[in-house]
Amino acid sequence: MTSPLSFQIDQRCTESSARIGRVTTLHGSFDTPAFMPVGTRASVKGLSPDQVHQSGSQILLNNAYHLMLRPGDAMIADRGGVHEFMRWDGPILTDSGGYQAFSMADINAIDDEGVTFKSIIDGAKVHLGPERAMEVQNNLGADIIMAFDDCPPALAPDEKDPHAMGAFRQRLEIAVDRTTDWLHRCVESHARAETQSLFGIIQGGPHSDLREASAKAVTAIDLPGYAIGGVATGESPEEIHRIVAETTPLLPEEKPRYLMGVGYERDLVTAVRSGVDMFDCVLPTRNGRNAGAFTRSGRLQLRNARFKEDDGVLEPGCDCPACSGGFSRAYLRHLFISGEILGPVLLSQHNLRHYQRLMLDIRRAIREDTWSSLYRAWPVLDRGSATV
Amino acid sequence: MTSPLSFQIDQRCTESSARIGRVTTLHGSFDTPAFMPVGTRASVKGLSPDQVHQSGSQILLNNAYHLMLRPGDAMIADRGGVHEFMRWDGPILTDSGGYQAFSMADINAIDDEGVTFKSIIDGAKVHLGPERAMEVQNNLGADIIMAFDDCPPALAPDEKDPHAMGAFRQRLEIAVDRTTDWLHRCVESHARAETQSLFGIIQGGPHSDLREASAKAVTAIDLPGYAIGGVATGESPEEIHRIVAETTPLLPEEKPRYLMGVGYERDLVTAVRSGVDMFDCVLPTRNGRNAGAFTRSGRLQLRNARFKEDDGVLEPGCDCPACSGGFSRAYLRHLFISGEILGPVLLSQHNLRHYQRLMLDIRRAIREDTWSSLYRAWPVLDRGSATV
Repeated sequence: MTSPLSFQIDQRCTESSARIGRVTTLHGSFDTPAFMPVGTRASVKGLSPDQVHQSGSQILLNNAYHLMLRPGDAMIADRGGVHEFMRWDGPILTDSGGYQAFSMADINAIDDEGVTFKSIIDGAKVHLGPERAMEVQNNLGADIIMAFDDCPPALAPDEKDPHAMGAFRQRLEIAVDRTTDWLHRCVESHARAETQSLFGIIQGGPHSDLREASAKAVTAIDLPGYAIGGVATGESPEEIHRIVAETTPLLPEEKPRYLMGVGYERDLVTAVRSGVDMFDCVLPTRNGRNAGAFTRSGRLQLRNARFKEDDGVLEPGCDCPACSGGFSRAYLRHLFISGEILGPVLLSQHNLRHYQRLMLDIRRAIREDTWSSLYRAWPVLDRGSATV
Repeated sequence: MTSPLSFQIDQRCTESSARIGRVTTLHGSFDTPAFMPVGTRASVKGLSPDQVHQSGSQILLNNAYHLMLRPGDAMIADRGGVHEFMRWDGPILTDSGGYQAFSMADINAIDDEGVTFKSIIDGAKVHLGPERAMEVQNNLGADIIMAFDDCPPALAPDEKDPHAMGAFRQRLEIAVDRTTDWLHRCVESHARAETQSLFGIIQGGPHSDLREASAKAVTAIDLPGYAIGGVATGESPEEIHRIVAETTPLLPEEKPRYLMGVGYERDLVTAVRSGVDMFDCVLPTRNGRNAGAFTRSGRLQLRNARFKEDDGVLEPGCDCPACSGGFSRAYLRHLFISGEILGPVLLSQHNLRHYQRLMLDIRRAIREDTWSSLYRAWPVLDRGSATV
């Protein structure tokens, strides 16, 4: 069967594995490397679809886990699918729900059939496995859907004694095998392959050999795209950069590569240089709601008293609605201190535009082979970074 | 001194006291009868200034009481005034802060000098009297500013025994005298008469003789406009209509007349027919934030389960962003049930546009002498109404 997704690479960087291109779906195209804002519950928090579009975003992500629980995937299918439901006519990607089920849920059991957990909505027992994850995503109807993977939460720093690390490695070995097994079952049960493109996910945690084994097993199945999962679950930026640098070359060169849930500006740039094409992250909207503003020189916390009488905009020269509208840091601070909705809205718009301007500059840097100008324009890339 | 405000009446209704016209300020004009959205803390809740403009609103209201307490009127003056601070370049009206001070505050004392209360922000003792109210409003810099009036909260229905009503009347008699006295002091202390137009306020509660006395005393001072205060503080719709019908003709015909804090659709139309030119009310945005949608056939509570699978828009034919964007009632309900910011934003936009479409139709009804078509297009006008 012909895939409903095509990926065209337009140009490759001469000094790194970075490339620019374009992914085309039945709901239109998006330029790569691409940043996808997260619309967890079929809404990018605080922004209308028009405003998401105005930010330069060409594809967005919805969370299957949340939508399955409320309002329900069958209900959304009855409404014509998630594009029609949320009135976004561009490409959409849904995750499988696995990550949330494994990391957020009150879990009853994890086994080879999937995960059983208590619904955060009504406490009901919910089962999510590969077949159900595909049914949910088929009901939602996104253009790109993700395999149901076994994604164990990373160890917390204070849990990293040798015994725990040994046990964690054993858990990751199981996860790698299960993820492959479940991927076969996902392919088998995918009922809408003519309209929805299934991506496989590589697991393996921080272990190079496990990543290699996972990549080998997963890419043995011919799929329209592949993702690196299980990163940004608590590792240091350097650790993430190493895992990404090691894993990305193991993915087919001619297919889009998606690094899930990452990250800060520097994380995106280093991953792009490793050959990653797609990103999603809640940072621009989540930080925006909490008065955190991204700028090219670093992040600002607008609740801080030092912005009380700051008449400047968030970032001079920025073309987002907050900066081009002339809203001062003093006014934005006032909005947050007073609990006004407009504060989170304007800051989310600014932060998302900040990310999309970075993606524009990254794509230009690749097209014009001018990484140095990118680093000059984005001082934040030389500073420390961290991940969610 | 020439007033910075002019009022031009373009046409009068042949069958009522309604008129259409235009008020011009140093920040531009607005058509009358006009509905002013409330931007309590220098933000119309949930809407950017662009979106307020797109709703058809030409003037908005800020609350001096809230802005005086936070971020502070002097701080806003230092930022260039409230137009610059909130980035709204059209006309702005500020209330004097009296209404909130008398009705919301933890009051220490009320006397002929004003009201002393505890700040809701930090508990500090704050005094508000005519001179300070003018200083605050001069600092904020709105185009239309309101006199500091004595506005006693109305009796609750269960307080209306003869003794309480007698005491309340005595309190209103004091309020009428004080309001006149304070108006003189406001005129005296108004430091920016060349740019800001001071409106006087009529008090008197439900008593026709007190309203008449207040109107006589207040209109004895030549001011650019006059307002009816102390209504919509708990009276029945019929009571409000009676007070407005009795009081409006007592105000100069050639000056704009402003009915403060009113109300539902029918309240606006009956007041317009009595000759009122300006309105403000929190209803469209407050109801919007609480999942209440205005339609021409009545109000909807979108949290109600009956909208769960309702694929229709809020109001077919409405040109607001929510309706013209095709967002279904089912989706809007989902946004509210899930606590998504976009729900309040879209509903506030719809409700404010609903009000401004009513004002457009009211002005057309006056211009074309076609009240019957207004009532046909707005079935809600024949139904019960109430006020905040």
